[in-house]
Amino acid sequence: MRDPEVQQREDIARFAAALIERLRARRPAVHCVTNAVAQNFTANVLLAAGCVPSMTLSPDEIGDFVAHSNALLVNLGTFDRERRKATERAVETARRDHIPWVLDPVFVDRAAHRADFAEILLTRGPKALRLNRAEFGALAGGEPTKSALMAYAHEHDIVVGLSGETDWIADDTRVATVANGHTLMAKVTAMGCAVSALVAACLAVEADAWRATAAALTIMGVAGEVAGAKAAGPGSFAVAIIDVLHNLDAPALAAHARVTLHE
Amino acid sequence: MRDPEVQQREDIARFAAALIERLRARRPAVHCVTNAVAQNFTANVLLAAGCVPSMTLSPDEIGDFVAHSNALLVNLGTFDRERRKATERAVETARRDHIPWVLDPVFVDRAAHRADFAEILLTRGPKALRLNRAEFGALAGGEPTKSALMAYAHEHDIVVGLSGETDWIADDTRVATVANGHTLMAKVTAMGCAVSALVAACLAVEADAWRATAAALTIMGVAGEVAGAKAAGPGSFAVAIIDVLHNLDAPALAAHARVTLHE
Amino acid sequence: MRDPEVQQREDIARFAAALIERLRARRPAVHCVTNAVAQNFTANVLLAAGCVPSMTLSPDEIGDFVAHSNALLVNLGTFDRERRKATERAVETARRDHIPWVLDPVFVDRAAHRADFAEILLTRGPKALRLNRAEFGALAGGEPTKSALMAYAHEHDIVVGLSGETDWIADDTRVATVANGHTLMAKVTAMGCAVSALVAACLAVEADAWRATAAALTIMGVAGEVAGAKAAGPGSFAVAIIDVLHNLDAPALAAHARVTLHE
Repeated sequence: MRDPEVQQREDIARFAAALIERLRARRPAVHCVTNAVAQNFTANVLLAAGCVPSMTLSPDEIGDFVAHSNALLVNLGTFDRERRKATERAVETARRDHIPWVLDPVFVDRAAHRADFAEILLTRGPKALRLNRAEFGALAGGEPTKSALMAYAHEHDIVVGLSGETDWIADDTRVATVANGHTLMAKVTAMGCAVSALVAACLAVEADAWRATAAALTIMGVAGEVAGAKAAGPGSFAVAIIDVLHNLDAPALAAHARVTLHE
Repeated sequence: MRDPEVQQREDIARFAAALIERLRARRPAVHCVTNAVAQNFTANVLLAAGCVPSMTLSPDEIGDFVAHSNALLVNLGTFDRERRKATERAVETARRDHIPWVLDPVFVDRAAHRADFAEILLTRGPKALRLNRAEFGALAGGEPTKSALMAYAHEHDIVVGLSGETDWIADDTRVATVANGHTLMAKVTAMGCAVSALVAACLAVEADAWRATAAALTIMGVAGEVAGAKAAGPGSFAVAIIDVLHNLDAPALAAHARVTLHE
Repeated sequence: MRDPEVQQREDIARFAAALIERLRARRPAVHCVTNAVAQNFTANVLLAAGCVPSMTLSPDEIGDFVAHSNALLVNLGTFDRERRKATERAVETARRDHIPWVLDPVFVDRAAHRADFAEILLTRGPKALRLNRAEFGALAGGEPTKSALMAYAHEHDIVVGLSGETDWIADDTRVATVANGHTLMAKVTAMGCAVSALVAACLAVEADAWRATAAALTIMGVAGEVAGAKAAGPGSFAVAIIDVLHNLDAPALAAHARVTLHE
């Protein structure tokens, strides 16, 4: 008989592997309200994963774009009035058409105004919240312990995907950690934003938001780890992670994934 | 005696080769109204081809910039009110000063509002229209057959440059195909936008808009093909195509170009 | 006894080397009002140098961001009303909180409106002005000779950092030249913008603005020179300069720097 934890780990890894193949087969359209710094890199990450990105923020167009998309990302970086207005229309359309969406509350620890808007958005039904430790602190008011993550997920009926040296993925009953990744991920701008876009893509092809979020963080963590082994610095790392993501197949993903389930 | 088709093919290839040398000698200034995702990559493509890009969208400045440019790109990606206003001033200046301009109707198949604006712009004298099959369908209402392309070119007094596995370049009397390129071109965001910018650059140094458009699509197709042979994925491909474009000389271009004229 | 000029050159080179280590130790937060083309590359350059970039332009947020930053960049590229308003709030906050800031008057030689705004900003206390020859001509009305640079620096109580084949750094009493760099630096968009961001970063950790500016131009010039030796063209150059900047240590910097003091 196999060790049950090893079994579960393989399940998640195998699931992430299956999901990247599903992305490539279904080519989901992912509309992104994201910051100016991240738009290009995010689009390239989504293309490398097999998706069809779109990025318009125009209030006149965003309804049409979201309505024809399979998932939506709302990222609060470089958040101006144009993006606020765009977000309101985009989220309204997503709710009406039952299109899953992700919130990435970039730098809510740096601007009170932005944190306030994140609180409002959390009441509008995002499936997942992808953020880092400082941003979690700003929203939840404490350290991201396992029980704090689960409590926050329960309170907001959301999956929390917390990026860090180890990533944590929690809903109100399940917690997993992903121990993949590479230190250079923190040295490339918009890396976290791109992870959030990949969470949106996975939500487009998987109804269980916790599994979708865990798969997205696993895929990006493994891609980062493989890319980091080839890179000479953050410049070549940003290039390599796109190549690796494009070429990542199920066996490589399953072989590299270090996922643990916490009961 | 040589086969006339081979002769013509060599003529276009040789013409494309001559044109890239003309770009490097004259260094045309190309002003771009383009989308937020494409601005950086487009500027780097133009620089690699020997041009001087500028990108401002400010209504207070764009008239000055266009007036001192040799060509203009109007790309409808991420099209907001700021870009609409900028486009109106830019096109007005281009018409007044007889500066050639290109229209790239990105994603007109995704938003009715955008398609409507493209129709208006088509009445304002663009020299060329660079687009893909889905966008052509949205504007012309059918498949891009040879006769449909020629009819559309005739009706709008424009050159049509249609990107795809094979590129088609048509005006009302001439049609050419370019069979260069690489599948990774569809995996890098803003690749089509950058091709359109190169069409604008070629219009700056060549009065025959059909030859200019054919040359631009040949140059980019060959650069993509050469870059694709070196790349490990879309990340390294996006880097390599800039390098290749910068280093592309007339003999390499003539050797790789696969252009056919269709009487 | 050593040649005093060689001695001084080593002093500046050693100072630049010390400064990059200070950046890595202190990790200054640098807020950037910069153009849409430059945002991503600038953020990656700052991250590679050990800094924490932020980029928001929203009038509702920029005060908070600048107040928590250690330096500010104001770059006039793609200058629209949003950026003008953002700049006014950012500079107001910087003045109130004594946060050093840099002005990069991109393309003031191309638009009268932009030159006028640069003149206003010069009265608001920037520590340094980073620009090229054409931009200096537009603002100062002449050639950037040593005495013209010193006179301009004196008149505006500012350090002038002039980029070119040789860089010049002048205040009212001191002038240095940096003979590092690579021709490919002019073939990558936003390279000058990124240099200006690095000037801001150095001002965050060094009170002598002339030494800070000289160090920033030396660091970037050396990084460009080392990257140029490895690059196959402007695409791979843009990647390599980020890698080199990330890996640059004090001995490499001191070994490559070609700085001369002009009494």
